[in-house]
This record gives sequence, structure tokens and C-alpha cells, in this order.
Amino acid sequence: MPLDEDGFIARHLRPLAGEGAHGLVDDCATLTVPDGEMLVVTCDALCAGVHFFADDPPEAIAKKALRVNLSDLAAKAAEPAGYLLTLALPADICEDWLARFCAGLDGDQRLYAISLLGGDTTRTPGPLMLSITAFGTVPRGRYPGRDRARAGDALLVTGTVGDAALGLRLRHDPGAADGWGLDSAARDHLLARYLLPEPRVGALARVADRVRAAMDISDGLALDAARLARVSGLQARIDASAVPLSDAARCAVAGDPEMMELVLTGGDDFELLLAVPERDVDEVRCAIEHEGVEVTRVGRLQEGAAGVVVLGTDGMPLDLSRLGYQHF
Amino acid sequence: MPLDEDGFIARHLRPLAGEGAHGLVDDCATLTVPDGEMLVVTCDALCAGVHFFADDPPEAIAKKALRVNLSDLAAKAAEPAGYLLTLALPADICEDWLARFCAGLDGDQRLYAISLLGGDTTRTPGPLMLSITAFGTVPRGRYPGRDRARAGDALLVTGTVGDAALGLRLRHDPGAADGWGLDSAARDHLLARYLLPEPRVGALARVADRVRAAMDISDGLALDAARLARVSGLQARIDASAVPLSDAARCAVAGDPEMMELVLTGGDDFELLLAVPERDVDEVRCAIEHEGVEVTRVGRLQEGAAGVVVLGTDGMPLDLSRLGYQHF
Repeated sequence: MPLDEDGFIARHLRPLAGEGAHGLVDDCATLTVPDGEMLVVTCDALCAGVHFFADDPPEAIAKKALRVNLSDLAAKAAEPAGYLLTLALPADICEDWLARFCAGLDGDQRLYAISLLGGDTTRTPGPLMLSITAFGTVPRGRYPGRDRARAGDALLVTGTVGDAALGLRLRHDPGAADGWGLDSAARDHLLARYLLPEPRVGALARVADRVRAAMDISDGLALDAARLARVSGLQARIDASAVPLSDAARCAVAGDPEMMELVLTGGDDFELLLAVPERDVDEVRCAIEHEGVEVTRVGRLQEGAAGVVVLGTDGMPLDLSRLGYQHF
Repeated sequence: MPLDEDGFIARHLRPLAGEGAHGLVDDCATLTVPDGEMLVVTCDALCAGVHFFADDPPEAIAKKALRVNLSDLAAKAAEPAGYLLTLALPADICEDWLARFCAGLDGDQRLYAISLLGGDTTRTPGPLMLSITAFGTVPRGRYPGRDRARAGDALLVTGTVGDAALGLRLRHDPGAADGWGLDSAARDHLLARYLLPEPRVGALARVADRVRAAMDISDGLALDAARLARVSGLQARIDASAVPLSDAARCAVAGDPEMMELVLTGGDDFELLLAVPERDVDEVRCAIEHEGVEVTRVGRLQEGAAGVVVLGTDGMPLDLSRLGYQHF
């Protein structure tokens, strides 16, 4: 039986719909923002062959699409409230694929306590594309913009950096794992970090007012730090030796020191990059670690024009061939 | 000079950004919903070769993408507040094309008093795709859902129906204009209605509380009436001879009576379909016509299972080969 749009929506999407979705029988959704709060919205599109592999498990594609958006909300200390899903489907997508895709969404909806509000479905003669718009709410005045950092602020990152980029490298070149001397657990860790990011939802909930500027690291630490610094009229100074690596990433870099540049410039980690006044660093670190998320100081912001300077172990600026992932 | 993402955003998108967009230097946007109002969101994706022709003027593609979303908001009596834009660009899109696309957005931003809040840009190996999420606000309790119609309600439509579908037919078969006996003004009217819909923004502003159910007609009058009726547990009964036609559409149908089926089942008109209690029909009609938009009664809702019945001039149900445009 060929897949029809109304049937697909009824069978697979309607069970995901929450309050405000009007059962997905309408073209619009509604959302009530609590008094005293403001809406935070973000939008990320993913394209097969660009942001994921077309043969990735459909559950993982769904979760990644949702999580990259939740990561943007997390960087703004926003509590997730719901999302819209746009799906452009090539003709060879079958109902089983869609059922598994929706099962992935369902799992993450439960994990992050959110629901589907609406969206759009269409056919495409091109590759599978999906776009998610996620909504969150934050108390008015508690929004950590990207452009409010000041000279002297410390730069902190959550978790570990570079795993996803190394995992992507392993997808393209599976033999590299042996060259780097990785055991199978280390290899699987890097692959999983690329396939399924873990957004830091809730990490800033208790310290949003102590964070001057925040963003998630999606296009590489160096590039994203440069972006944060530039819009604040500053320069980011990052100490490469301070950048937190997982055991697997440390092993890869030990096996091939050139991988350190990939760690610094590769994307897809979805950790948070924070600019925090010096006096508040300990409190912010403590509050975020209370949420179960590690925090590491990697540098600071200073006056200067160059966007970002990354210092090597010898204290000299590294000459990076590129800062990060430019979408085009 | 190759087009880079940050440069494109800075040169072409930032001038479109409004309050809450944070200069597009952030991954999120913010929106404050006035007290006592609720947020209405809608999302429509358009794909080259599916929803528009890749060689359509870029200004028109931009406006159509925006307007189909504003049309959804108009059907909910929502006042437009802003939008997110997702662009997936093939490699052959040049900066001139993007500049013209953004000029189209700029024109409609002024026309509808809205601004860009944010979005996402990416490359795609497939055809150009764009997705717009539009936001509006409506007083709480004033949202005309699609599923609240009752038996006996009159079905009204704004404007004229079928023009866009006939315009699309002319794009595929330009010679049909002569076969239908259209003069050049009539042909241009139909082509323009396909290329550039006119969302009925503001039409319901004064009568939202008198409209039981409303939606825009995007996939064909018959299919959309069936959808509205079904989710209300009813059947729509449409009198084909009452369906309002433009002079151009009337001429086309006179030249080829088979075009009447296309008028009834073709999409892209973006007129509003309203279910209104009998006692309120005159007031609703009067209020909408006060906004400069024609309103015509085309049928009513009744108990019944079949979704929609379209009656021909002889009073007998028409046997339509399909009800409208299914996206897949």
C-alpha cells in the first residue's frame, strides 16, 4: 500500500503530538508562554549526506535532529516546551523507516519531557531533509545572549571536546582506529558521540544570571569561540592543553598528534561554551557539576581583533588551517 | 569570491532581522507574547520542482514561501509577529540569486509588518529547499480550530477558487490558454495567482469569535473541505455552481468544461474556508468584506461520513477522480 500523507500523520505523528498540537489536524499549533517568561526559538536543518549518513539508523537520525535543537535551547538556559518537525521525504523512504524514525522521536520526547506541536511533510526529488524548530521558555531577563561577553571573562566548556569529529573521521576511515591504537570501547565511544549528541539540557538552569554569553559548540571549538568573541568585540584566547579530552580522544591524539587540530576545529560536539566573569567561575562550575556535567576552563576573552588565538603547549599560537566547519 | 555562510548572513539576512533576532549572531531568537495572548505557530516547507519552479524569479519564491505561512496564520485570526527561515542551498545558487531572494522577503516584510527572527542555512546536494516557521499572536480563547464545526454551519470561502491550479496548468501547458480562449490579461491573472498567493491576513481579525472552524485552501477546495468536515465528524456539502470563479477561471471553464474539476480540486489558492453558524453568516461576511475581501457561501456542513460531497449544476454528486493535492 503506498504511503499517503494523511495516513502517515495519523499513524505515526499523531501519537507524538502534545497539548497545543490540536491533534495535528490543523495547520497551526498554539503555545501559551507563562506570564513573566519569554519564548526562545531555534531551528536546525539536517540533510542526508551532509549532516548524517543516509544509512544511519532512523532512530538516531531523529534523535540527532531533535538534540541539536535542544542543545541550542540548553545554551540559552531555556526549558524545552515543544517542537515542530518538517520532513522532506524522497520516494524510496518506506513506512518501516518512518516508524523507526518516529520511535526515535518518541524515546527522546520521554527523555526530555517535550512533545510534537506540528510541522510539515512533503516529497522531495532530492535527499532526505529534516528541519526542527524547537521552543523553550526562559524567565524574562535571564537570556544569556552570545554578544554580552566582556574582556577578562573566563571561557568554560562542558564535557569533552573533539569526540564527535574523531567519530566522524572514523566513519569515513574505519582503519584509522587501528592507526590511532584505539580499543573497541574507545572507537565505539567516538562513533556514538558523533551519532548521538547529548544536549546539556538543564545545565544552566540555576546559573543563567551568572553566565554573560553562551552558545553550543556545533561547528568546532575554535570557530565557535571566534564567533562568540567577535560579536562581543573581543578575542578568544584558548589554551589547547587545557581543552578537555575523553580517554578515547586522548588516545587518538597520542596515536596521531595531527588529530589535535581536528579536536580543536571539528564540529558536532554540542557541548556548551560559556563566558563567565572571573568572580563567578567557581559558582558556575559548581552549579553545572551539580547537574552531573563536567566543566573545564579553556581560556579567556580579551581585547583584540583576530577572533580567536589558540595557544599550543609551547605557549605559541597554533597555525590552524581552518577554524571549523563552515556550512558553505 | 565563494559565498561563505557567515558572510551571506551578514550581508543579506541581517538587514531583515528584527527585534528578538539578536542580530542573527545567536543560535536562538526570542519572542515576548503579550499578556493575555497566545502564540500561534505554523510551518511550511517548499521544494524546487515540487512547490515552485526552480527558474521562478527568486523574489517570487521568497514571497510565496512567506505568504503560504502567513495564510495559515490568517486562517487562525492571528496577527503575524515574525518568522524563521531555513534555507538548503544547492552549490549552483549564486549570490545574485540570494540577494534577489532576500529582496523579495524585504518587500513582504514591509507589506505585512513582520521581520526575520532567525533560522538556519545549509548546503544540499539536492534541489533548493526552504522552510519557513511563522509566528503570530491571538487573544487567548479566540483561536478558530479546524475541528469545532457543527452540523448546519454554513461553508464560506474568500476570494475566488481555482485560479492558482489553472495558472499551474498554464505553466505546464502554455498552449492551453488559446484552447480555453483566454486573452493575455486573463492568462496573466491565472499565472500570477499561482506564482504569488495573497494571504488573507487580517480578514478574520474582527470576527474570530464568530467563526467556528477555519483553514486555508492549499490542497484543493474539495480535499480541504473534506479535512475540515472529517475532523469535526461531519460531511461537507458543496454546491459547485456556487463556487466563486474569477472572470479568467470562468472563461477557462467555459472553454474546457473539464477544467471545473481542476478548479474544485486544485491547490495553491490560499483563500480561507470558514465554517460559520447560520445566524452569524451576514455579520461575518460583512466584517470580512469591510477588510476588502469578498466572501461567498459555497455550501454547508451536515451529518454524514463521506467527508465531502460536491453537487453539480443538476444537483447530483460529482464523481471527482481525486479530491485534491496529496503531498505524497
